[in-house]
Parts: sequence; structure tokens; C-alpha cells
Amino acid sequence: MSKYQHIKQTAYEANMQLPKLGLVLFTFGNVSAADRDLGVFAIKPSGIPYDELTPEKMVIVDFDGNTIEGNLRPSSDTKTHAVLYKYWAGINGIVHTHSTYATAWAQAQRCIPIFGTTHADHLTTDIPCAPPMEDNRIIGDYEYQTGFQIIDYFKDNNLDYKEIEMILVGNHAPFTWGKTAEKAVYNSAVLEAVAHMAHLTEQIDNYAPRLKDSLIKKHYERKHGPDSYYGQ
Amino acid sequence: MSKYQHIKQTAYEANMQLPKLGLVLFTFGNVSAADRDLGVFAIKPSGIPYDELTPEKMVIVDFDGNTIEGNLRPSSDTKTHAVLYKYWAGINGIVHTHSTYATAWAQAQRCIPIFGTTHADHLTTDIPCAPPMEDNRIIGDYEYQTGFQIIDYFKDNNLDYKEIEMILVGNHAPFTWGKTAEKAVYNSAVLEAVAHMAHLTEQIDNYAPRLKDSLIKKHYERKHGPDSYYGQ
Amino acid sequence: MSKYQHIKQTAYEANMQLPKLGLVLFTFGNVSAADRDLGVFAIKPSGIPYDELTPEKMVIVDFDGNTIEGNLRPSSDTKTHAVLYKYWAGINGIVHTHSTYATAWAQAQRCIPIFGTTHADHLTTDIPCAPPMEDNRIIGDYEYQTGFQIIDYFKDNNLDYKEIEMILVGNHAPFTWGKTAEKAVYNSAVLEAVAHMAHLTEQIDNYAPRLKDSLIKKHYERKHGPDSYYGQ
Amino acid sequence: MSKYQHIKQTAYEANMQLPKLGLVLFTFGNVSAADRDLGVFAIKPSGIPYDELTPEKMVIVDFDGNTIEGNLRPSSDTKTHAVLYKYWAGINGIVHTHSTYATAWAQAQRCIPIFGTTHADHLTTDIPCAPPMEDNRIIGDYEYQTGFQIIDYFKDNNLDYKEIEMILVGNHAPFTWGKTAEKAVYNSAVLEAVAHMAHLTEQIDNYAPRLKDSLIKKHYERKHGPDSYYGQ
Repeated sequence: MSKYQHIKQTAYEANMQLPKLGLVLFTFGNVSAADRDLGVFAIKPSGIPYDELTPEKMVIVDFDGNTIEGNLRPSSDTKTHAVLYKYWAGINGIVHTHSTYATAWAQAQRCIPIFGTTHADHLTTDIPCAPPMEDNRIIGDYEYQTGFQIIDYFKDNNLDYKEIEMILVGNHAPFTWGKTAEKAVYNSAVLEAVAHMAHLTEQIDNYAPRLKDSLIKKHYERKHGPDSYYGQ
Repeated sequence: MSKYQHIKQTAYEANMQLPKLGLVLFTFGNVSAADRDLGVFAIKPSGIPYDELTPEKMVIVDFDGNTIEGNLRPSSDTKTHAVLYKYWAGINGIVHTHSTYATAWAQAQRCIPIFGTTHADHLTTDIPCAPPMEDNRIIGDYEYQTGFQIIDYFKDNNLDYKEIEMILVGNHAPFTWGKTAEKAVYNSAVLEAVAHMAHLTEQIDNYAPRLKDSLIKKHYERKHGPDSYYGQ
Repeated sequence: MSKYQHIKQTAYEANMQLPKLGLVLFTFGNVSAADRDLGVFAIKPSGIPYDELTPEKMVIVDFDGNTIEGNLRPSSDTKTHAVLYKYWAGINGIVHTHSTYATAWAQAQRCIPIFGTTHADHLTTDIPCAPPMEDNRIIGDYEYQTGFQIIDYFKDNNLDYKEIEMILVGNHAPFTWGKTAEKAVYNSAVLEAVAHMAHLTEQIDNYAPRLKDSLIKKHYERKHGPDSYYGQ
Repeated sequence: MSKYQHIKQTAYEANMQLPKLGLVLFTFGNVSAADRDLGVFAIKPSGIPYDELTPEKMVIVDFDGNTIEGNLRPSSDTKTHAVLYKYWAGINGIVHTHSTYATAWAQAQRCIPIFGTTHADHLTTDIPCAPPMEDNRIIGDYEYQTGFQIIDYFKDNNLDYKEIEMILVGNHAPFTWGKTAEKAVYNSAVLEAVAHMAHLTEQIDNYAPRLKDSLIKKHYERKHGPDSYYGQ
């Protein structure tokens, strides 16, 4: 048995959540799960329908994007995953989808304003939208550069990837991450729900104000930080 | 067997309706069921996925928010439930969700106008939206104060909680209640449907007029009051 | 066995289609099926959830709205059905729902413009929306008068109920009918789909033009009239 | 056994995908599958509900629209399929639906702007919308002329049907095609998803810019062309 069996299983199960949560059409999404000690991650093979996936079909890749184990070609977005794992040591799971509402905000190249507590339960800022990539990045090693587009945006805007576990890439679609692949999938579903609600909020009041700071702080602390009291 | 078994069962069954009715993502919602004679209510434990719920996992809490029985931490919204039960003697069930359309109206901080008979079959006024809480209330005992935010809004606006069994809390999300937990869940689903239709109505005619008084009165009396003739 | 068994069975099956087609929440809808020779129709009992319905629970009512057979109270909309059956001899099935998009148009008090061939395959005019009823009609025998509101609208606008098998009642919701209860249910689903598309069409182009006459005529004739060539 | 059994089976399976993918209501859609060597295609019979379809019920038609085998009348759109097969030698599958979002764009008579990479993964231009047909074409052999309306639009606008496997027919609805019936169905689902996202994108930013050329090129080449690296 592969010594990577545990992350293949984790990545498989996390990938299978995407269609159940309504986040993907056909193969438009992928999840990876990393093992930091082994220095690799397991990721969905490219273009394989979800109902044909098995744990064995997951591809093992190192943090430079080299395939380590597996007969299938890994997801075309593999290098983006690799870059994020390499530079952000605190994450062990990454998800990429083209979920409808999050992708629409990405296409409109807008950050998603924080309008309510559903959003504030998960992060204290607008959901960031990185601008579309510069042409030299696109023409070069595109997926690799997509990873840097995300990392640079966080750096340039003083954002903390441990606090903000999601981003929209302008004209493209969302990426989310977390301490586990399961958490990263959770974040993708939350992002889609928040994107839907924010769209409706602006339609109901075109000048809806952002959530005030006291509420942002309170709701975030309910779920996070030293005095959190959500969950068991 | 616990002497609270009956309300645990009721609360369990009512909670399980939320995902079936499409009103919750993950654990973003909770239902409680009260027994007035025993002076307690059963409520969903915090952060437990719906497919792991059992009647035994429900937590018994008194009307001051103290846990009376149960090994799990109760919903983080428990104190809001407790306040409503304490001050509104006529209710035995409460629901809180972040359902998509109702939450969007709450985020836009707008009451939902009464546009049609679907709405009027259930209440004769716009669906109230309490303003976001003052900072001193947020910084204090937040969930406890959320209860008072709701109660004060009803008092200040001369609304009757027995006639209007739902409210949006500005920037947050809806709460509904009723004589039973089942009725409170029903109200949450009705609210979501009415919120959806009202949003569409304004999109189809930005100046759509509110329903006229004679129709409001007629439809409400069909389902309520001494001469009601809806149902068996 | 009841001599009305056949229409009870027909009405039961047609009613059970409503939740399957996503046209009703809870009990917000009803279907009836008439037998012209017997001068009666079978209709859903009031307020009974769809999953508790059986053919035996259907109520038999005559065209003046009198209950002829059945232990349960008939739908609160029964008199509207009775009036339509009485005055429109060519119909044997009627459906009333509060389906989301059709109801939103009714709440906005707008006829649904004919924008495309999906619409033209079924009728050659905008989908009519009768104005909200006058107060004297509302205060009186409301459901009875709702029937006349529909019939009068058709008469005043020279519309033919055999050609246009659906209407929105302003501020209320849609009614549809047909030669059979099954056809009336079909019409309710078509209406909801057309209402959804028309709403989106106006959002995509606020000045979208109505379908031109030559296309209206062609598509309608494909499905109807002497030279129709749709279906078997 | 029919010598056309293989395309009957293919057409049957492809047709059955339409309701699963949420692309059709009732019988509002059809798929055909061609065999170039035999010079025929198999197509859905007209007006038969999807749950009553079997491979045997598929109708065999030649590229001039003549029925070659089968007891049922073929889809009313058969001649449109025939024309496309006759003039576009590279396609072996065609789909016609009235899917909600694509049809709304067709009704608004607008091409769908290329706003993001979901779109660019499949084609490098806006999704074309042919204008509504001229009256002389409508009055004549309508479905036959619909085929020419599509072919002429591609010719007049220098579009390549092998690169752009979908079109909206103004005021009507979408047609898609591909090297196989399965691919044509895939294209219908992609079109509907892209139409939905594009609608939302314009709502989120009414002046959202089209995707820039470098991104269009990159994403398309990921999935197509000599250096593609998507899939296995």
C-alpha cells in the first residue's frame, strides 16, 4: 500500500464533497490534501468525472509541482496548489471551483463586501479579489504564476492567510484553503453562500452599508480566538 | 429516561426539517422547543452537523439560559431563545436560520413589504426588520441582548408577537417563533418564500405598490380569526 | 366504491405533481378535476399536506360550490374553481399555485410579455394579469368573486379561455386550466418557466422587444391548429 | 436488430442526460446522434416524455430530413438538425434545449460576453446570438430555415463551427453541437452555466469588462490545441 494512502483518501473524500455541495459542474473543480512531513500533496487527476474518482486515482505531487506517484496527469491547476503549499506553511488543504456566485464576483473583479454576520462568522474583511494577472505572468508559467498572484495580493494588502482562507482571482474563479482539506471545502461552500447573499443584498438596497466594526468583531470572536464559544 | 424526552424529540424533529426545507447550510441554524410547565426548552447543540444529531444530543436549558441537562454545549444563540421564551409566554418554539433571501433583506436592513396574498395569508404587516444593535449591546452579553433587540422592537412599534411570528435582525438574519416548534419551522420556510417573491416583485416593478388593506384583511381572516375557513 | 372514484384518482394524481414540479410550498396550491356528465369536480381538501393525501381524501363539489361527498373541508379556493367550471364549459381541470416567479409577476401586477418561442409554443398573447379585485368583491364572497374577476377579465379583453389557459390575479397568484387536470398542471409548470425566463430577459435587456407576430404565429401553429406537427 | 442500433443507443443516452442536467422541462429539448458512413442520424421522437423514452423509440432520419426508420414522428426540430449535419461535416451530435438562462439571453437577442475563464476554457469569442429570422424564412419551411439561419450567421461573421460549438437563435433558444452527441450535451450544460454567470456578472458590475485577450488565449490553449494539458 502507498505510504500516501491517507492523503489520497482525504483528497478523494474532499473532492467528492464538491458535487454534493453543488459547487461544481462536470470537472470544474479540484481539492488537494497535503502531508507536511512527507512534503507532498494528493490532488484530483485532470478531467476525470467525479463519479469515476477513487482514492487510488489521486496523484501525489511535491511542493514544486513534480508528480511523485500516480499514473494519471494531475489537475491542470496543480502548480497553483504547489505554490500555495510551499509559501504558506500553515495550510494542508486547497480547493478550486468555478462555483456560480463566487465566480460571478470574480468576473466582475470586485471584492465581496462584508454585509452581515454570516460573512463575519468566518472573516473580518471583505473577501479579497486579486486583479487579473499581468500579461507576462499569463504568457509564462500560468498556473504557477496564479499562485504568486494570490500570495502577492495577500502580501501587498497585509492580509493574513490564516485569517482569510479564501480569494477570488479576477476574471477567473475562487480558491480557498485551510488547515485541512475538509475545512477548505467548507470554506468554498461558505464563500458561495456569502457571494449569493451579497449579490442579493445589493439588489435589495443598492447602497447597503457594510457591517459595522463592532458586529464584525463580535461575530468573528464567537467562532474564533481565545474566548470563542461556538461549537463543542 | 429523561423527563425532558418529549421536548428533545420535538426539538430534534424540528431541527431536522431545516436542511430538508433548504433553510440551512452546514450548522447555520437552530430550533428549540419549550415545555412551559417544566420551565425549560430543548435546543440544538452548537456546531453539530445535522446528520449527526439525535434526540439525546439536544440540550435542556432554562429561561435564564442555564444548562439543565446535556453533555454538549448548547447553540451559541441559546440566550436569544431564552429571552424570547421568558418574556413572550405564548410561544413554545423558536427558529433561527441564515436562509438566503431572508438574510439578504436583513443585510439590506429593510422590512419586507407586503406585496401579495402569500404574505397576507400569514401576517398583516410588512415583515419587521430590527435595526442592527447599538454598540453597547454588542459589546455586552450579545446573544442575550439580541433577544431584547427583538422584544424592544416589537414593543416600540406596537407589534404583537402572537400576530407577527417572525423578524429580521438587521445585518444578521431571521428569527421565527410559534405556539409549537413545528409552527416556528413552518414560519421560517414561509418567510424565506415571501422574501424571495418580494425581491423578485421589486425587480419586475421597482415601484410595485403594497397590497391594499381590504386584501390584507381578507386573506388573513381566511386563515386566522373567528371566521377562518382554511384547513380542517 | 364512490361513483366519483375516477375524478378523485385524477385529482389526486394531478395534485401530487405540484410538489414534484417544484410549484408548491407546504399546501399552497390545489388541483381539481371535473366530470361534466356528473356535474361535479374533485378537489384537494384544505390544508392537508401533500404527503398525507390519498384519492379518498379528495372532496366532491358541484359547480355551485356545494360539497357533495367527502368528510374533509374542500380547498379554500373551491368556489373559484366552481365558477370557472360553471361558466367555461370546455375545461375539466383547474390548478391554483403560488409558484415563485408567476406569483412575483402577479404581485407586480404586470402581464408577462411574450419574449420568445417557449411562450409562443403555448399562447399567442402576453400572459394576462387581472387587476386586484375591487373592494366590494373582496368584502363579499371573495373566492366566488375571484372566479368572476377572471371571467370578466377574459370577457372585457376579448380573450378566449380555450386559447389562453392561464392568468395571474393581481397581488395574488396564478390560475391555470385545461381540458384535463393533467393539462392544467402542465400549464402551471409552463407558466412558471416562462415567468422565470421573462424576468431574466428584462434583466439582460431592460428594453427587450416582444416577439414579432410572424414568429408568434409560426410557433403556436406548430403545436396547435389544423396543421400542427408537434407530438405524435 | 436495426443496423442503426448504435446511434439509437447513443441518442437515447444523450437525451436522458438533459433532464439529469436540469436543461429541460417536459419535452422542451432534443438530442441527435449521427453516423456519417450511413448518412443518417437518430433523434428523439416528438413530444414523448423523457421517462417513456427507450433506444427503440429513436427515429432514424437522413440529412435531407426524411424519416428512414421508426414508427414515431421525429422531433419537430428535425430539419434544423438535418441542415446542420448536411453542411457541417465535422459534427456528429446536436442538442436543442430551452434551458433557462441561455434562452433568456436569446430572448434578449444578445451575444453572451466573454467575462471569464469558465467561458474561455471552451471558446475564445462571445457566444453568438443569431438575429430572429426574417419573415420570409419563418413563413416558409421554418425548421429547415432555422438551420440556414445558424449556418449563415457563422459564414457572415467568419466563425468556425469547430471552434464555436454553440449558438443562440434570437427570440428562440440555444443549439449546441460537437464531434459526439455526448460532447454536444456537455456544451449545452456549459452554455447554461456560462449564461448564468454572465447574467450575474452584469448585475454585480453593469460595466464589467470583457476578458482580456491574453487570458482568453491561455485558457483556451490549456484545453485545446497542440499544447493542451487539460484532461488525460
